[in-house]
Amino acid sequence: IGENLIIILEQHATQQQIGRVLEVARQHGYLPRSWSEPGRIVVALLGSLGEESEEATFENLAGVNCVQQFETRYELSSRAYKSEDSRVSVGNIEIGGNRFIVAAGPCTVENKEGLSATAEGVVAAGASIIRGGAFKSRTSPFNFQGMGKSGLELLFQVSRHIGVPFVTEVVDPKGVDLISKYADMLQVGSRNMQNSALLTAIGRSGKPVLLKRGFANTIGEWLAAADYILAEGNNKVVLCERGIRTFEDDTRFSLDLSSVPVVKHLSHLPIMVDPSHAAGRAIYVPALAKAALASGADGLLLEVYYDPSLAHVDGQQSLSLEQFNSLMPELKAIALAMGRTV
Amino acid sequence: IGENLIIILEQHATQQQIGRVLEVARQHGYLPRSWSEPGRIVVALLGSLGEESEEATFENLAGVNCVQQFETRYELSSRAYKSEDSRVSVGNIEIGGNRFIVAAGPCTVENKEGLSATAEGVVAAGASIIRGGAFKSRTSPFNFQGMGKSGLELLFQVSRHIGVPFVTEVVDPKGVDLISKYADMLQVGSRNMQNSALLTAIGRSGKPVLLKRGFANTIGEWLAAADYILAEGNNKVVLCERGIRTFEDDTRFSLDLSSVPVVKHLSHLPIMVDPSHAAGRAIYVPALAKAALASGADGLLLEVYYDPSLAHVDGQQSLSLEQFNSLMPELKAIALAMGRTV
Amino acid sequence: IGENLIIILEQHATQQQIGRVLEVARQHGYLPRSWSEPGRIVVALLGSLGEESEEATFENLAGVNCVQQFETRYELSSRAYKSEDSRVSVGNIEIGGNRFIVAAGPCTVENKEGLSATAEGVVAAGASIIRGGAFKSRTSPFNFQGMGKSGLELLFQVSRHIGVPFVTEVVDPKGVDLISKYADMLQVGSRNMQNSALLTAIGRSGKPVLLKRGFANTIGEWLAAADYILAEGNNKVVLCERGIRTFEDDTRFSLDLSSVPVVKHLSHLPIMVDPSHAAGRAIYVPALAKAALASGADGLLLEVYYDPSLAHVDGQQSLSLEQFNSLMPELKAIALAMGRTV
Amino acid sequence: IGENLIIILEQHATQQQIGRVLEVARQHGYLPRSWSEPGRIVVALLGSLGEESEEATFENLAGVNCVQQFETRYELSSRAYKSEDSRVSVGNIEIGGNRFIVAAGPCTVENKEGLSATAEGVVAAGASIIRGGAFKSRTSPFNFQGMGKSGLELLFQVSRHIGVPFVTEVVDPKGVDLISKYADMLQVGSRNMQNSALLTAIGRSGKPVLLKRGFANTIGEWLAAADYILAEGNNKVVLCERGIRTFEDDTRFSLDLSSVPVVKHLSHLPIMVDPSHAAGRAIYVPALAKAALASGADGLLLEVYYDPSLAHVDGQQSLSLEQFNSLMPELKAIALAMGRTV
Repeated sequence: IGENLIIILEQHATQQQIGRVLEVARQHGYLPRSWSEPGRIVVALLGSLGEESEEATFENLAGVNCVQQFETRYELSSRAYKSEDSRVSVGNIEIGGNRFIVAAGPCTVENKEGLSATAEGVVAAGASIIRGGAFKSRTSPFNFQGMGKSGLELLFQVSRHIGVPFVTEVVDPKGVDLISKYADMLQVGSRNMQNSALLTAIGRSGKPVLLKRGFANTIGEWLAAADYILAEGNNKVVLCERGIRTFEDDTRFSLDLSSVPVVKHLSHLPIMVDPSHAAGRAIYVPALAKAALASGADGLLLEVYYDPSLAHVDGQQSLSLEQFNSLMPELKAIALAMGRTV
Repeated sequence: IGENLIIILEQHATQQQIGRVLEVARQHGYLPRSWSEPGRIVVALLGSLGEESEEATFENLAGVNCVQQFETRYELSSRAYKSEDSRVSVGNIEIGGNRFIVAAGPCTVENKEGLSATAEGVVAAGASIIRGGAFKSRTSPFNFQGMGKSGLELLFQVSRHIGVPFVTEVVDPKGVDLISKYADMLQVGSRNMQNSALLTAIGRSGKPVLLKRGFANTIGEWLAAADYILAEGNNKVVLCERGIRTFEDDTRFSLDLSSVPVVKHLSHLPIMVDPSHAAGRAIYVPALAKAALASGADGLLLEVYYDPSLAHVDGQQSLSLEQFNSLMPELKAIALAMGRTV
Repeated sequence: IGENLIIILEQHATQQQIGRVLEVARQHGYLPRSWSEPGRIVVALLGSLGEESEEATFENLAGVNCVQQFETRYELSSRAYKSEDSRVSVGNIEIGGNRFIVAAGPCTVENKEGLSATAEGVVAAGASIIRGGAFKSRTSPFNFQGMGKSGLELLFQVSRHIGVPFVTEVVDPKGVDLISKYADMLQVGSRNMQNSALLTAIGRSGKPVLLKRGFANTIGEWLAAADYILAEGNNKVVLCERGIRTFEDDTRFSLDLSSVPVVKHLSHLPIMVDPSHAAGRAIYVPALAKAALASGADGLLLEVYYDPSLAHVDGQQSLSLEQFNSLMPELKAIALAMGRTV
Repeated sequence: IGENLIIILEQHATQQQIGRVLEVARQHGYLPRSWSEPGRIVVALLGSLGEESEEATFENLAGVNCVQQFETRYELSSRAYKSEDSRVSVGNIEIGGNRFIVAAGPCTVENKEGLSATAEGVVAAGASIIRGGAFKSRTSPFNFQGMGKSGLELLFQVSRHIGVPFVTEVVDPKGVDLISKYADMLQVGSRNMQNSALLTAIGRSGKPVLLKRGFANTIGEWLAAADYILAEGNNKVVLCERGIRTFEDDTRFSLDLSSVPVVKHLSHLPIMVDPSHAAGRAIYVPALAKAALASGADGLLLEVYYDPSLAHVDGQQSLSLEQFNSLMPELKAIALAMGRTV
């Protein structure tokens, strides 16, 4: 089914030359995407239906510097397509820069008091994004599926009252419109990483997205999943490592911190880390949070609850506000030693 | 969040007694489901929001024999809820009985000639269901996503011409209505096993479903996923083992045939086996197909293409018609030795 | 560190020509091994320390038909080295031929009564090799490590009394000499598959070996482990699939029956299957035993105990004699349907 | 087979009382081990052959505070047996204290020049232990197995010349005596973690041990393996996380940094981390090294080679001296921020 190509144009290629490359690409059945960054202009030719390699077709067009095949199974998320680190703005917060971003809050919104107390506590301690689930993807239909729209409204009220953005999960393509009206960032859960209908709908929303890694997916498949969002013209994708499934049973999942340097090497997308779901127990979270920072991640997604013993869902893995308050200064000290801020 | 309960009623409980149990259950916030089979009537109380165990509430109601907690993370798919094997009719074919059912055809519908030649060939050799993909779930958005509606129409024409039912994949809740108009059985792919929005939509369609195991999901999670379909009142669920992800790299996935006796022990649902995707190479498929039969599975899902060298997708793992013609008599001989038919 | 080469000589190469190839090979630092089978003579050149490819050095020697590089990480166990199926004799029993061999007995020898009753029972039902552990490899030093030498003597007495050979595990290179005096076949357990000191010692013993797959080893690594034994001139190696470690938790390990056709394709060595350790529960064993036969394996290793409720170790996964007596006729019927015997 | 018990004696129990507990324990078939630390005296009763729980037998002995069952599958390595952190001295270096220890050097000793240049370079940059392989455990018998005794002598010369201790691998129980004469610390490789004959021989040597985690072993099994060494009276055990086998293929293994906080919670033993083998590529090593420090590990085991392009084994994953020189100041800064030294 043909090959996907990447064309690097001369630094000073004209609009006319670029236009001609795109035109020829469409004539040959490609879906072309172009990107310019300092020093070069890139056109990615994707989805060819041709039977043969068509590098030669493009090599001789005016303004073309070189043509190469994508060597990976992901394209728009690759460093070949965009060599500079991407930064994603969520409200007034930027993910992917020098500041290490901490998103914190309850696993699931259960009531206003719990949400308010938790959100105010984590923001006071230095968190810059609130997280909380209103629509949940659960293993069984008979588990609590979240408060739904009323949970979403609570998140919106509390977030606006405090003045920080919030991220919440979307589990159904039909829910994208509703959730996009409230949330500052949409989260795709691990079980939905390869739900192409959901990824495409979220891509079309134009909203910032936090794309969790499937618990049994390779980094290559994760970047290919990001391509589903990027292919809709939505570049605001932040990856989130959350642990993979292995034989180890003292933790719920095995947090794969190797994915941080690997993603930084292969992709331009920012990457955050969620140690809470992986660890499955709050006592293991602070060590992993510090390790995530030291590994070069762009931020953390942490489950915190003002009183974990009261949480209906996943209380065992939630940090208390007290534990969170102890962790933040440790993160700040390490960040400082690395020339970063929290 | 409370416990799910299972209530076994006396064999001769009256409609009034059953009605009273359901009424009390609803008063206590449960979603009750009832099921009768020879010798007993079962009511499952699911989704309680109560804080405390409510076994005592039901134990003293008239007609109640015993009350117990579900001991597993799946309910409607369990033997506790339904002790007898379920059988699922797809067109004129019954899955789950003494006959071992072979569903065969191309991975992806690519053109009418290939589909017709393949379908006629496999049916002539003894296959009783045609399989083929029109809408595909692919790792990258730039992979071929299938022919879509025109592929569906081709499947319908060929299936009706030959006179056997067909099964095809659904990847998006929005596509359930369209595909249900044509297909005899809807397939949920491995990547979508925990896509609850899709499972619920398919449950509501009332169509027979082939639910593939997620490649990194436990058998318990698989049965919980089946519960999403069963919870909508659709009992026509057939499970399909298709291999799990491990470290082994000589096969694409590791076919977990242990799941056949485990599912037979834990659940009343039929189970088929797809050795093609797991093996990743046609030469390994016949041995695994025979092993699936010997392990007690209810049928096979096999990729066959009249000329695998011409297939655009997954040709390497497709049996040729010649290989399929050799395999079927071997399956028939083993089935006969086991007191079954093919 | 150079490449391993395989040289195919002309069918009628003279002893002098073969000798010259071996001589040149040694001059270039190789450890050469030769093998003749109908139609060809093979010399494997292994362990080169040279920096460059030396194919050209051998291509022009008299009697040489062709020279190629080994394309795999295992050599002596590969089909490239020996194209015909190997057969291994254990006492009067041959493994690797048309007869499907059943080795059965207790996990661990615990006393004479239990061993005798079990061994007599399984042989009466059709088993042709007795299995039992005297020296055990256990996870903790405080678990029962087996009866040791007295267990070995019991196995010997019972085996000779009944007149069938027995297989037992070796866990320490220092124990090879002692165990070789009694046992007909030495078993290498899963935890020791990559214990090169043990493999080498067993290779030197010249005894038939049952080499279990490491529970986290690829098939390629398993064949490389077999090379440690074959490299000592001991060709009597039988592989034994016993399940790999995955995330699935309803079985103790995931029996990887795909390894049967893969091993048959890649290697000339016979392969048996141990479903007992993988399943972890006796109720799942018969289905997997039948599947192993249907997949093309050369035999089974089954845990059977005359009264599993009395076994100290692994009673839960042992078949009772009654269950074994039910299974054997089923195996015989399937074998007959496949043109084989049990 | 009975239960293992842990007896906590009164703080001021007399020698006579302790002796009586040990005497009764031996009468009941236990292998008792005792340990005293500030505030309490512990006696572990291991390896019972009794059929029944014998807690009551010990509860009423004089001086006994409480009796409990071990709740885990490991005993001597548990916090229940020893609540304070253990520290292990290797030459003049202490592992397990406030100082973060860096052991560095080549994967395999290949010649004196390479070893000297590398060792001098890493020590100058702050490494305090030299690492290097003389006897290697390899997948195939035809891979380079190391220089053997001459490699060991080179390590000894270079280590003594520079004045820092060295650690090297032991692969065969028969080699323990020889290697113990030269090396300051014995390393058990991943493939040998469950080689009980080797663990016992090393335990008897009394030498400090670096016990690598088996690449498919749980943390519980790893601690049970440590018990084999501790059971011989050798308390100088340091654990080393080196990555586990998963489906991810962009790294050679998945470094499981969760094991650091888990081990710290469950065990008193120190834990180091080897990111080189896990990553498989040098570019990923610095991020993982910093993460290991931040996670609370006691030290690092790093592959460094003065010129990785010249290394015969594993050059791709070795840091160059230049990369190592860049990494050390980063580690020192993070350690300082955590109140530690390097």
